[in-house]
Amino acid sequence: MESERQGVFAERGLFVCFEGGEGAGKSTQSRLLRAWLEERGHQVLLTYEPGDTPVGQEIRRIVLSPETGALSDRTEVLLYAADKAEHVDTVVAPALARGEVVITDRYVDSTLAYQGAGRTLPVAEVEQVARWATGDLRPHLTVVLDLEPQAGLGRFDERDRIEGESLEFHQRVRAAFLAMAQADPAHYVVLDARASIEEIAAAVRARVEPLLTPEAVAGGPA
Amino acid sequence: MESERQGVFAERGLFVCFEGGEGAGKSTQSRLLRAWLEERGHQVLLTYEPGDTPVGQEIRRIVLSPETGALSDRTEVLLYAADKAEHVDTVVAPALARGEVVITDRYVDSTLAYQGAGRTLPVAEVEQVARWATGDLRPHLTVVLDLEPQAGLGRFDERDRIEGESLEFHQRVRAAFLAMAQADPAHYVVLDARASIEEIAAAVRARVEPLLTPEAVAGGPA
Repeated sequence: MESERQGVFAERGLFVCFEGGEGAGKSTQSRLLRAWLEERGHQVLLTYEPGDTPVGQEIRRIVLSPETGALSDRTEVLLYAADKAEHVDTVVAPALARGEVVITDRYVDSTLAYQGAGRTLPVAEVEQVARWATGDLRPHLTVVLDLEPQAGLGRFDERDRIEGESLEFHQRVRAAFLAMAQADPAHYVVLDARASIEEIAAAVRARVEPLLTPEAVAGGPA
Repeated sequence: MESERQGVFAERGLFVCFEGGEGAGKSTQSRLLRAWLEERGHQVLLTYEPGDTPVGQEIRRIVLSPETGALSDRTEVLLYAADKAEHVDTVVAPALARGEVVITDRYVDSTLAYQGAGRTLPVAEVEQVARWATGDLRPHLTVVLDLEPQAGLGRFDERDRIEGESLEFHQRVRAAFLAMAQADPAHYVVLDARASIEEIAAAVRARVEPLLTPEAVAGGPA
């Protein structure tokens, strides 16, 4: 389970990930990117974690079901890792091998950011499990939609009182995403989620376009 | 996830594991040991893997359900590891902390023996996941009930034709158990499963009795 520092990048296809806190616009931007890519003639697979496989749905149900009761921290990490393993092996990697563009709403970085913020287990151990689960496959580009936690949480329920502890948790999540992006600028872009939807979409396209090489990605403008 | 070579042994309670191939008599011997311990006034918890927790039952159902379809190798390892994490954290460790004797029918060694025999993934990686899942908690004593695969498989269905490949698989499982026992004689005993039930039970008791120290194990003869 030695994790290669640099990770594994698929030779074919393009693997793009959207990360960020709640309410930052990940699903909106994922869909806009898909629409733009499809207009250009690319095959696109839009997916998400956790849950986008039959066993992932079961895992999601187990983790969320009140009947399950409390789960130990390690159990939860391993269940989410099982979801990731199945997602990569049966959905992400096959689509990349076909030369498609895979866009995922959340991936390993979410596990690390939220687990690290929760601090129930050493994040280095959680990372080793998550990297092993995914064969250390990494996105060619991760788009971090950066937003102050107050703003993002406010989008869902403005009446919610943001407790001090909860806010700190989300601030640690945000800091974790920013630190991962800063450590590997070749594979990350951080965008201010307060910009307009179209401004953000344009900035995403600007980073994605040079990656659409004919050697890697099927389709595209003739 | 560095695995301590020596593992972690609970300071209270007594953790006994039965391992071996199919049909070697693990459940019979587990029950006989429990009866003997209870007669002596000890609290005994008889358990098994996989499945002896609510989430373990769900995991077992997922892994066995035809609706799940094929699972990737890593998904399966991680699901079984999640079962182990929950089993140790919510069943085994609390009982040991109460000074009870925990007897489990299969544990980490089964994962290693069967996974190693299947050779779908590097067994060292599987071991790291399983050790992490269990906090590397190890039995004070593992009883390997050793049996030639032909004999054990024959007990279930004598008409079954044992294919060459299947037999080799079970021979590799057997060899793996024996190798683990040989590497750590202080924590293992290998017993010939062809001996009579009472002979085996007596040999098990002989190895367990010196471990029932009043400092570790509640109850016992006054």
